[in-house]
Amino acid sequence: MQALWVEDGQVTLREMPFARAAGECAVRVTLTGICGTDLQLLQGYAGFRGIPGHEFVGVVEEAPSGDVEWIGRRVVASINVGCGACEWCAASGPEHCPSRTVVGIRDRAGSFAERVSVPASNLFEVPRAISDRVAVFVEPVAAACRILEQVPVSADTRVAVLGDGRLGLVIAQVLRTVSKHVLVVGRHEEKLALARTLGLDVATPRQCRRHASFDVVVDATGRASGLNDALALVRPRGVVVLKSTIHGEAAVALWPAIVHEVTLVGSRCGPFAAALRQLERGAVAVEPLISGVFRLHDHPSAFDAARRQLKILFTTS
Amino acid sequence: MQALWVEDGQVTLREMPFARAAGECAVRVTLTGICGTDLQLLQGYAGFRGIPGHEFVGVVEEAPSGDVEWIGRRVVASINVGCGACEWCAASGPEHCPSRTVVGIRDRAGSFAERVSVPASNLFEVPRAISDRVAVFVEPVAAACRILEQVPVSADTRVAVLGDGRLGLVIAQVLRTVSKHVLVVGRHEEKLALARTLGLDVATPRQCRRHASFDVVVDATGRASGLNDALALVRPRGVVVLKSTIHGEAAVALWPAIVHEVTLVGSRCGPFAAALRQLERGAVAVEPLISGVFRLHDHPSAFDAARRQLKILFTTS
Repeated sequence: MQALWVEDGQVTLREMPFARAAGECAVRVTLTGICGTDLQLLQGYAGFRGIPGHEFVGVVEEAPSGDVEWIGRRVVASINVGCGACEWCAASGPEHCPSRTVVGIRDRAGSFAERVSVPASNLFEVPRAISDRVAVFVEPVAAACRILEQVPVSADTRVAVLGDGRLGLVIAQVLRTVSKHVLVVGRHEEKLALARTLGLDVATPRQCRRHASFDVVVDATGRASGLNDALALVRPRGVVVLKSTIHGEAAVALWPAIVHEVTLVGSRCGPFAAALRQLERGAVAVEPLISGVFRLHDHPSAFDAARRQLKILFTTS
Repeated sequence: MQALWVEDGQVTLREMPFARAAGECAVRVTLTGICGTDLQLLQGYAGFRGIPGHEFVGVVEEAPSGDVEWIGRRVVASINVGCGACEWCAASGPEHCPSRTVVGIRDRAGSFAERVSVPASNLFEVPRAISDRVAVFVEPVAAACRILEQVPVSADTRVAVLGDGRLGLVIAQVLRTVSKHVLVVGRHEEKLALARTLGLDVATPRQCRRHASFDVVVDATGRASGLNDALALVRPRGVVVLKSTIHGEAAVALWPAIVHEVTLVGSRCGPFAAALRQLERGAVAVEPLISGVFRLHDHPSAFDAARRQLKILFTTS
């Protein structure tokens, strides 16, 4: 099959055999999205070597004998695969299993390929009402839903989402399903204009510089400076949600977090079932975030676009 | 009166008039302690200019007409003075009032002096059972008690306190009043030996390097590298308490906090009443932490000792 291969920060298109792991399903990838984490992996984050890609929708082609009912179904898949035996797997699922693999991120082939192997226990069937172009967003929508599991948010909670990129605009829409006061803070006029068409309130950093008054600030900037900006906007005893996985060390002034007794919450993967419900009822508009669809051999243009634009998808069909 | 004056990172002993503020009490300082924040102020933290010092015990000498019952009483004092009118003061006290002053830290003269002016509403009478040498620790013990207000700690919570300095050894003892599993992690053989005599379990960083298994890790190292160390020791979805107010920016790798969904809790001032109760019932041994008592004119030796040893006190009597 065709697949993108990352090694030492270089991406190449390769023709390689597909390997369905024992006891797992083979999913033929229909659409797969580029996320900020992929761009970090390309820069060497986590020493990644292999096929990246973890946001995808596809159709199950093969399954082990106990899971044949999945064959032919249109699916998305949660990305953490645990050992199933440790205290972490038993208590709260595979997300923090010490020996977990993660699709396209950690010791497991990803979805920038024609096929990907995942256990049936990670699959979620996509309802008919959700198109492929929407379903490919389930993983980032789930990551946004994770915030609602970690942080108390009510209708009156004042929320700022820092970052007008693909993840910021998803997070803002998910938090808006609960809070009446969600502000997207960004620097890109085009992206802020799009946010406005989604009905989101927007501001530039300069416009809200004096308002250290937000109950919850989500750093989805993908930049090392995002945390300093978040600490400048959050109220005393407020919450900053960390969503920017930055490779390496960054210069951070953490004393404001102590002086103002801020709580910082690291937030990663989230619930797929909740994300599917949000997409099915149309609470989160994701199709407007698609900036382009590329074929795998156009990967240099695709990654270049992903660095500047919103969601870039690969199609392998 | 005699007082230490800090300006542009220089400390001088000055003879200066004492100014009791309108509506406040004059406290004659008996003993006052040097804390890590004072050492930061001397290095320019918060652009401080004035008399530092915020840990003290003394006797009320003068009071406004409505508070004369305080005269002659032995007291300690909480250090935040709010406006009394804003939503913060109304909701939760003066600690986060935007226009607050803080004794010896922010826009208010401190206790490295013969007298200090504080409102009667900040005073706490010291019970007879508590000596001056113990009472001077109420402020840092209160800061340690603050952790118990912010973070769920039970008998089975596995706690690591990073830092074998004066604050670390106070925090470890306070947390031990609740948890059966408190470990002090430090680098100084003498200080760890003292911790052992206080009945605390101790380890060097090397000895616990492989155990990313603590539910709660408190960074009381006073060093910029403390947070990275804490993130290496905390379990997934655990809590890191930030107690090291470091001046300026520090290089921090925050991605582990996201990958492991760690919660970081900034923690500052705490409840004086709870701290007095802890000291009165002998749950926290503080006298063994006193490394030396100096007079104000010996301040160079005192600050030098405070950088290497445990608690250094000034006596002005």
